[in-house]
Parts: sequence; C-alpha cells; structure tokens
Amino acid sequence: MIKTAPTKAEMIDLQIDYKSDIPLNRQIYLQIRDMILAGTLPCETQIPATREIARKYEMARMTVNVAYEQLELEGYVVTKPGSGTFVTSELTLLQGGEELAPVELSKWAARIQSPEFASSLDVGRLTAETNNSKVEIDFGFGRSFSHIFPYDVWRKLLARYLSTDDALLSKYGSVGGFGPLREAIASYVGRQRGVNCRPEQVFIISGMQQALDILSRMLINQKDEVLVETPGYVNAARVFRSHGAILRPVPVDENGFQTTRIPSDSDARLIFVTPSNQFPHGGAMPVQRRLELIQWARSRNALIIEDDYDGELRYEGSPISAMQGLDDSGRVIYLGTFSKVLLPALRLGYVILPQQLCEPFLQAKMLMDRGAPTLTQAAIADFITEGHFERHLRNLRKLYAERRGVLVRAIQEHLEGHVTFANHPAGFHVMLYLKNGISEQHVIAEMRKKGVGVYAGRPYHLFDWAPPSLVLGFSDLENEQIEEGIKRLGDVLKQPSASLN
Amino acid sequence: MIKTAPTKAEMIDLQIDYKSDIPLNRQIYLQIRDMILAGTLPCETQIPATREIARKYEMARMTVNVAYEQLELEGYVVTKPGSGTFVTSELTLLQGGEELAPVELSKWAARIQSPEFASSLDVGRLTAETNNSKVEIDFGFGRSFSHIFPYDVWRKLLARYLSTDDALLSKYGSVGGFGPLREAIASYVGRQRGVNCRPEQVFIISGMQQALDILSRMLINQKDEVLVETPGYVNAARVFRSHGAILRPVPVDENGFQTTRIPSDSDARLIFVTPSNQFPHGGAMPVQRRLELIQWARSRNALIIEDDYDGELRYEGSPISAMQGLDDSGRVIYLGTFSKVLLPALRLGYVILPQQLCEPFLQAKMLMDRGAPTLTQAAIADFITEGHFERHLRNLRKLYAERRGVLVRAIQEHLEGHVTFANHPAGFHVMLYLKNGISEQHVIAEMRKKGVGVYAGRPYHLFDWAPPSLVLGFSDLENEQIEEGIKRLGDVLKQPSASLN
Repeated sequence: MIKTAPTKAEMIDLQIDYKSDIPLNRQIYLQIRDMILAGTLPCETQIPATREIARKYEMARMTVNVAYEQLELEGYVVTKPGSGTFVTSELTLLQGGEELAPVELSKWAARIQSPEFASSLDVGRLTAETNNSKVEIDFGFGRSFSHIFPYDVWRKLLARYLSTDDALLSKYGSVGGFGPLREAIASYVGRQRGVNCRPEQVFIISGMQQALDILSRMLINQKDEVLVETPGYVNAARVFRSHGAILRPVPVDENGFQTTRIPSDSDARLIFVTPSNQFPHGGAMPVQRRLELIQWARSRNALIIEDDYDGELRYEGSPISAMQGLDDSGRVIYLGTFSKVLLPALRLGYVILPQQLCEPFLQAKMLMDRGAPTLTQAAIADFITEGHFERHLRNLRKLYAERRGVLVRAIQEHLEGHVTFANHPAGFHVMLYLKNGISEQHVIAEMRKKGVGVYAGRPYHLFDWAPPSLVLGFSDLENEQIEEGIKRLGDVLKQPSASLN
Repeated sequence: MIKTAPTKAEMIDLQIDYKSDIPLNRQIYLQIRDMILAGTLPCETQIPATREIARKYEMARMTVNVAYEQLELEGYVVTKPGSGTFVTSELTLLQGGEELAPVELSKWAARIQSPEFASSLDVGRLTAETNNSKVEIDFGFGRSFSHIFPYDVWRKLLARYLSTDDALLSKYGSVGGFGPLREAIASYVGRQRGVNCRPEQVFIISGMQQALDILSRMLINQKDEVLVETPGYVNAARVFRSHGAILRPVPVDENGFQTTRIPSDSDARLIFVTPSNQFPHGGAMPVQRRLELIQWARSRNALIIEDDYDGELRYEGSPISAMQGLDDSGRVIYLGTFSKVLLPALRLGYVILPQQLCEPFLQAKMLMDRGAPTLTQAAIADFITEGHFERHLRNLRKLYAERRGVLVRAIQEHLEGHVTFANHPAGFHVMLYLKNGISEQHVIAEMRKKGVGVYAGRPYHLFDWAPPSLVLGFSDLENEQIEEGIKRLGDVLKQPSASLN
C-alpha cells in the first residue's frame, strides 16, 4: 500500500438543529460518523479542528470537544497532539449490504418452517391469533375469569417484596425455582392432587410449553416414538415432533386414553396423557386404565407425562387424584400450571419429576433459561401457604360449575338433535360434535358474523379422520352471554346451508 | 379366565381419626383405595354396604356415600343396583416398581451430562451456587444495586394492571411480546444505543439465556463452527456447545474481539461478541474492528450475535453505539437485558432480529414457551415511556461510577505490583490478573476465610492457557465494603504462601 500524505478535509457541512432534543454534541458526532462510514470523509483525512467547527456553528468549543472525544473513543478518529484529528486509517467500508444471500437456517428451523410441519399441527398459532380478535361473545378457552381473581390480595403479596429493604429481587434466583414455592407446591399437590413428592422434585417453569420442550430434549432422540391422545393437545404434539419424534396417536373415548388401543408394535419412549380431564374431549381415565398404562410404561422403560392442566376444576365429587400418586417406580412426570386457575399471563407452572430426572432437568434448564421471575414465585408461595389459593379454587369451582350448568342447559335447549357432547362435570370448556356433513368453517364464519367466537375442533384430531366439532370455552363469559351465544349457534345450525362444505 | 362368583369381603378395618383435618369421607376413600391397590381387597370382591360402615364407625351414611361415589367415579368400584358395591374387575396391580432399569436419556441430555461437557465449561453452575453463600463482603457480579431501584414507582406501575377492571392478565399474551413494550424498546434502543429497528423486530424473551438457546436451535447444525471470545461469556459458549457447535475461541485484547485473529480456515456460521464492553476482560471494540467483523460475516453469510449486556453503563463520554446500527444487511442480532440495569429477578430481556429471522424466531419461540409474563412487560413499557428508565439509568451510572472509582483507587493503593487490570470506565465489574504462579483457588479460599467473596477468572478462558485472575463485581457493595474487601485481598496477595499451587 502506498502511503500518501494525509489530506485535509475542506470545512465540513453539518446540519445543526439548535432546537432539537438531540444535544448539539450528539448531532456533530452522528453527522461526522456518518460521513466517515459513507466514505465522504476518507481514511486518514484530517478533519477540521474543534475550534473551527465551534466558530462556524456558533457553539462552545467544549461541545465540539465532547463530540470529538466520543468519535475517538469509538475509533472513528485519532488525535495526534500538535498536528490535529484524523480519520482512522484502514477502515473497512461496508459494501453490498442489501444484496446478500438469505441466511441459512438450521435443519431444525427448516423442519419447523416446512409447510408440512406447519399445516398438520397448526392449531397453536390459530388459537393465539383468534383469541385477540374482537367479538361480542367469545367462547375462547383457556382464559381465567378476571372478575373473580383476588387482585387486592395479590397486590399486597407483591408489595411485600417490592421494597428496598428486600434484596430478593436484586439477585438471580435459583434455576430450579424459589425454595418456598417448591415447598408450598409439594404440600399442595400432596393434599389436593394425591401427588407424592418432595420439594426437590418440584421445578418451576415458565408455563407448560417450556416443560414439554425441556422434557423432549432430555428424553427424545430422532425417530423415537411418542404416544399422544387424539383428539389431543396439539401444542404438545408439535413440540414432540419438532424434536424429531414420530407421533403415534391413540384414540380417546368417554374415559380418555384407551390403553387397549396402544399399537401393539409400539416401542414408545414417552406417553402424553391428560388423565384427569381429557383435552379437549373431556372424560377422566378410570384407575384400571391408569394402572394398565403405568404397567405398560414399566414393561418398556417408557415415561408418562401426566398433564394435569385443569385437574382442580371438578364440579361433582372431589377432584380425581393424579396418576402420579399411583406409581412408585418413577415412570410418571406430573405437569401443573397456574395459567388456568390463577392467571394465564403469570406464565408459571411446575413439573414434578421422578428422582432420577431431577439433575438432568436442572442441567438442561440452566442452559435454556436461568429461572422464573422471583417476585411472582414469592407471591404465589405466600398465596398458597396463607390459604388464598385453595379459597380461590373453591370460588372458581362454584362459579365455573354454575356457568357450565348454564352452558349445558342452553345446549340441551337450543341445540337438541344437532350436536352430541361428553357431559363431564369438569374443566372450563365443552367439546361439541356436529352432525357429519356440517362444515365447521362455515359455522365458525356464520357465528363470527353474529358476533360470536367459536373454535374448530378438527385441528385437535391427529392424523385421524376428524368429525366436525367445536370447542367452547366458558370460563370468561357471563351466564347471559353463554345463553345468548348458544341460542345464536342454534340459529346457525338450523340453517339449511350449514351442511354445505 | 374362569369367572368365579364374587366373594364378599369381611367387614373391613379402617383407621378413622375423628380429629384429623382430613374429612371423614376422604379417610374412608383413601383407605379403601389403598386396600384395592395393594390387593388386600381383590378384584370383584364385594365391599361392605355403606350402611354397615356408617354403623360400625358411627358416622352419617351420607359421609360413606360420598367416599363410595368418589371410588366409583375414579373406577375403583362399581355399584350394581340391588346387589351391592364391588371392586372393579381386572385391575392390573403394579409390580416391581423399585427395581426397574434407570430411564434412558436422549443423546442430547447424555452429552450435556457428560463429565467432559460439564468440566470444561462449568462456570455457570459455580457462579449460581456461590452467589448464594453467605459472606460479609461479596464481590459477586451481575447483581443490581437494590437500594437505588425505584420500588415505589414500580409498585404503582404494577398496580395499574392489578385490577378486576383490567382483563389484560386473564388472557394469554402475545408470544413475541407485549406490543407497547416492543414499541418502547425499539424507540429506546434507537435513541440510546444507536440500534436501527422497527418494533416488529423486537422480541421479548425471558432472559439472555433463552435467546441464545432459541438462536442456537434456529441457526446451528451439528458440527457448525461458532466463534466466541476468550476470555468470554461461558454460559453462551455452553449453549452453543449443547447444540453440537464446534467452538473456535478468538482471543481478546484491550479493544475486545480481535478480528485479525479469526482462524483463517474458519467457516463459522455464528459469531458471539460483546463489543460495548468485553465480558469479562473489559474494553470496547473500535469501529474498525466492528466493520471488519461485519464484512467478514457478510462475505461468509454468517451472523453476529451482539451481546449488549451492559452497554448502558459507561462512565466517561456517551455509551458506545451498538454494532447493530452499523449494518444494513441483517447480519447482526442484538441482545439486550433488563437483568443488569433493572432487576435480575425480573427475568426479562429482548432480542432484536434482522427481518428475515423474525418469523422463524417466532415459530421457534412458540414451541418453547408461550410468551413472557404480561404484567412485568406492561410495567416495563410504562417505566420506559414515562421516563423512569432513563432517569434510573442516570442514577445507576452516577452510583456505579463512584463505586468503580473507589474500587480502582483501592486496587491501586492496596494491590500495587500484585495485579494488572484493564481500566475501562464501564460495566459493573473489574477483572484482575494476578502474577503468574499465584494460585487463584488459594486466594479465593483465603479470602473466604476473611469473609470476602471473590471469583475465579480462569473458567472464562476457553481452551486457552489461563492466567490466574479474579472477577470482582462492585454493583451490590457500599464504598466502605469495597475499600475493606480490597485491603483484605492485598493482605492475602502479600502472604508468601499465595504463590503455592
């Protein structure tokens, strides 16, 4: 490279806005910087002295000095004492920014982006989007009923830890979860859900989805089989598939997962079930099936994920005890969530692991996320141990039982002969099967015109022929809305055009 | 199978505790259930009539009815009208629970559990554990200074959304993040960090670690190369390795990542850098190196992850603008966090993506977690847009600059001749290099005896020969503690035994 004597830049033209919110020194810095990056001020050029700039633009020399110091700090210019300020030598000016090739994604990302992956299991996306749209009466599901949540208690519990005297929030929390919350949960699930565990087996997660993702990574190799329910919780199936699992759907009936219909050639490593209240069909697995499934898992060294997303919400008799409590061989992983019975927006749940999975889970979680927010965890711990949680559950059960009753009566009154459904006194939604030949999408669109949001059941049926069906959540609706919404559904189903596909 | 006539159980022995908190019906349910599960009451046995139990144990018949109904609901017994209540037929009793083979983990889990993976990059674990131990003066790093956080403002902001009139929290939030927060961040990073983006490019994450995990999954295939700084942020390196990446360490100097030391045979897909303030060494990358690195990435279709974990904390001049703003070709992914400048326990950060990565990132995130907690997001959005955030940053800068000054002066006074360090007016920690031959572990142990927590620098050096060094965080210490802690460090370093390995 031939070294030439540095050239001196002519006086540079700056556009100074004296009324701007951007400080003068910042304006100078930004404009000279951009000239250098654009090549307008080439490498090694001497730039005007601060005194000259200050004089020309009528500002304090100090202002210009600050700008020059920043330029020097960031390496745009060098000041040589006695000779002046120069653009750094050998700056690589960037070229061809816009025309570059697209970034290559990993095989994993390419797989989950593929149309095949997206289309077969697309309900997660659909739900997330449509939940936000505005309709007058929305039978969206999975929401909590905001009017009954004890916000005053919650505010007080949060405020306890929101003080400068409390250093809890200024440190990273424990990856596995906040100790007192793990204890409170272990005690609660023992008392209320028949789960048998010690606090060290309880791990706090930012929602079910995260637990499923971590467990998939820990347990699934490419082409491992996973048994899932159909109809079933598609977001779980999506995660398993994203990890390369081969899904084997097992049909459910009025009593949930049918152990007798596990394919005889299956060597599944993992089974995903919702035994307390099958999602989305409804129905609880009787103990006979539970024991058969555990025995099946034992005989094949497989693991069962028990998703107890709404096990607390049973409106006749006591809640059905969790499957986890039946097993003493560490084959059952129990998933619980606060999204359904507290607030979805809390984004907090828990997984209860067999002893031998605790350490691997912690290692995996540490790589993926350094723990859930401490404040929410501390507040929930107090909420449970001080009795607010179980009181809230009693209130919820009472309210939801009533709303469910209204829904069921409205269905019987207005939809008689047009639908069938599993009438289980549990959960916060009802799945309606329509007559064969009815178009789900047509009904949904007609209902939308009438200001009512109802949701397709078809996407929950995995790889099966899917009967037309609707999923109706009632947890965030008033009695009158439920009644009115079902009346309008009756009007739509009675139209002769409903059966057009 | 030969069907035999059902036998009738003798009157069963129940242990009823009339003073227990457990309701009587629950006691009956649990005990009969356990007898059935244990085989004491075999299949098809007729169990005593509710009237007999009620009479023997002196309780209302209704109480026993409730227990029997629950047993029937869960499938333990069947009631045949007119003939009585029978244990369900063909229950599979579980056998051999404890002696089963251990569960097999996935290859991924086996890899991250392997001693080789764990030992070479084990600092994350170390830090998390030691941060919790009790010492009088703790130079732990990465904490926020709790006494300066405006808890009163925070309480008020949270309370806004904690009301039954506000349905925000009773719905699932958006996976990409709360809209107003994405807007607030886009505007903030434009103003303060020179980042060039639209709100749709901002994604809210539950901390850096999650962003690194999602990005790794999206971008890294097995055996892809990733360039990382050494010394460097080991938790990032661990994530890349867990996804099968081959790490190529690039040594840093006083000006951070040395682009000229990228191995000439490297075809890295990803580069992880901390250009604003190299972690943990200290030092900012001058523009020349930044442009060279961007050009390198462009020429190889690679991506740069810019970790701006403490870019706001600069104590002389203005904060150095982010590298992201220099690139118009979508090669730079920007990571920001609220853990360092607000509260670590919030577990919230953001990633700003090139346009073409937005949709794949959203798809990936949706599989892994359904979004960050809405309440915290809403509060931070208001915290930023109402000016609290930038005011808080100014307070932090003032306070940390002072503490850093105290630390640097104490080092100069008490450790003269025993240590070297990069004196950059930024961040919230200082890395001290000790003389060769000094044992880090000995110094740490001696300091612990004196009630002072200091932390090893060696684990941050990747695959390199590691000079003995210490990392000293000052963000959660008072001036007097800093002074006293460094004095004690001087005493230890001046002991003749310090150099014993």
